[in-house]
Amino acid sequence: MTNGFVSLVGAGPGDPDHLTQKAARRLREADLVLYDALVSKEVREIASKALLIGVGKRAGKEQTPQREIERLLIEGARQGLNVVRLKGGDPFVFGRGGEEALALQQAGVPFEIVPGVTTAIAAPALAGIPVTHRGLSPGFIVLNGSDLEAVDRVVSSIAPRSLTIVVLMGIGPRASIAERLIARGWDPETPSAIVIGAATNEMWTWRGPLSNLPAAVLRASSAPGTLVIGDVAGLPIEISNEWSVEHVRA
Amino acid sequence: MTNGFVSLVGAGPGDPDHLTQKAARRLREADLVLYDALVSKEVREIASKALLIGVGKRAGKEQTPQREIERLLIEGARQGLNVVRLKGGDPFVFGRGGEEALALQQAGVPFEIVPGVTTAIAAPALAGIPVTHRGLSPGFIVLNGSDLEAVDRVVSSIAPRSLTIVVLMGIGPRASIAERLIARGWDPETPSAIVIGAATNEMWTWRGPLSNLPAAVLRASSAPGTLVIGDVAGLPIEISNEWSVEHVRA
Repeated sequence: MTNGFVSLVGAGPGDPDHLTQKAARRLREADLVLYDALVSKEVREIASKALLIGVGKRAGKEQTPQREIERLLIEGARQGLNVVRLKGGDPFVFGRGGEEALALQQAGVPFEIVPGVTTAIAAPALAGIPVTHRGLSPGFIVLNGSDLEAVDRVVSSIAPRSLTIVVLMGIGPRASIAERLIARGWDPETPSAIVIGAATNEMWTWRGPLSNLPAAVLRASSAPGTLVIGDVAGLPIEISNEWSVEHVRA
Repeated sequence: MTNGFVSLVGAGPGDPDHLTQKAARRLREADLVLYDALVSKEVREIASKALLIGVGKRAGKEQTPQREIERLLIEGARQGLNVVRLKGGDPFVFGRGGEEALALQQAGVPFEIVPGVTTAIAAPALAGIPVTHRGLSPGFIVLNGSDLEAVDRVVSSIAPRSLTIVVLMGIGPRASIAERLIARGWDPETPSAIVIGAATNEMWTWRGPLSNLPAAVLRASSAPGTLVIGDVAGLPIEISNEWSVEHVRA
């Protein structure tokens, strides 16, 4: 056994600005990086001395099987490498980070978790939507739109307008979610938003009532979308793309 | 009007490692920093050329009123300063960031949101608990223990064991929460955890069944605590403090 190490790292929602200092350091020091499809090129390029292997699902290509990813992590560490498993957002939010941690532990490979800024909070925030707000929402719930059955089950149990609902990968199932919430007693006028490509140059936001969500016309994009449902989506906070400290002070 | 600017910045859960690159840059460039009680000294010290003003609640001292904080932000920007409003975790998760954004907007002061790593996800993660896990939890809910009424209301509507519940500032109300969940049909054996002082040298974790939560003996600490309830808290992932890449490779 040589002294390799695996870091399960969250890359945040998009550009390297939202990477943590620890994540950036781990990337700079990495020998081997296994990255998901949602991780931006700019973030990957920080790992300048690493072998980079994409293991995420992309258009027309199959995702690397989970067991194979785990095997690569273990083998890399056993060969003495600094291995980084790089995931969009946070590694423990729908990232299968828990499964990888268990596999590494069972194999006796030392590892760490490097939390990242989750898209579930950052995508709404960068669009001017706070997931919590006094008098409007005392909390929030985060779901994964690609697990429609679970989304339906949870959404059906939430008392109308009792808190903010955030759905990652939420574009596809938005009609089903909106219908279920309205059937459950949510006001069709409940403010809603879709944020696509948060923290990238292609960020795009739609806002409207819950009842318009199914028919919302979206800008075509390959970037993932985040759905936000709740009164916080109706707050009149506007974030201008022109509003950066560099721009204002230039 | 001079060209000042306000950044609403999340400081993450503890040490500067979990600060984003953008947050660190804003702190280095800041002229004025208004910080909350939960922000660590090490993070504040990055703002080496700024006037630092604590505005959070501390033992024996009153919190600066919210309107006064907003007035200071606006006045600072109007004097042409780079102003940072620094909050523990993420600025839009129970941070009153939305209120501050609205106040700045109404005053015509340019501002931005700099999302941070939320303690709601990072505290469990650093203790080895993923908030989501295939087959165990398809999502999670985040609540604020200092708003007990809202916690009670939401907790009463969640179907037993349907997802992970995370409560920030959750030490105080843990008995009330556990009782309500059990009354609502949650198994008293549902795994639970308390994480105190995440991402600090004083990090401490308790794990046990939901029914033991009220009587859990905690290590005395002034650090805030995060409560995690759900099957994910029973995963046998162990994060060793000895497991850092620096240690393993030394």
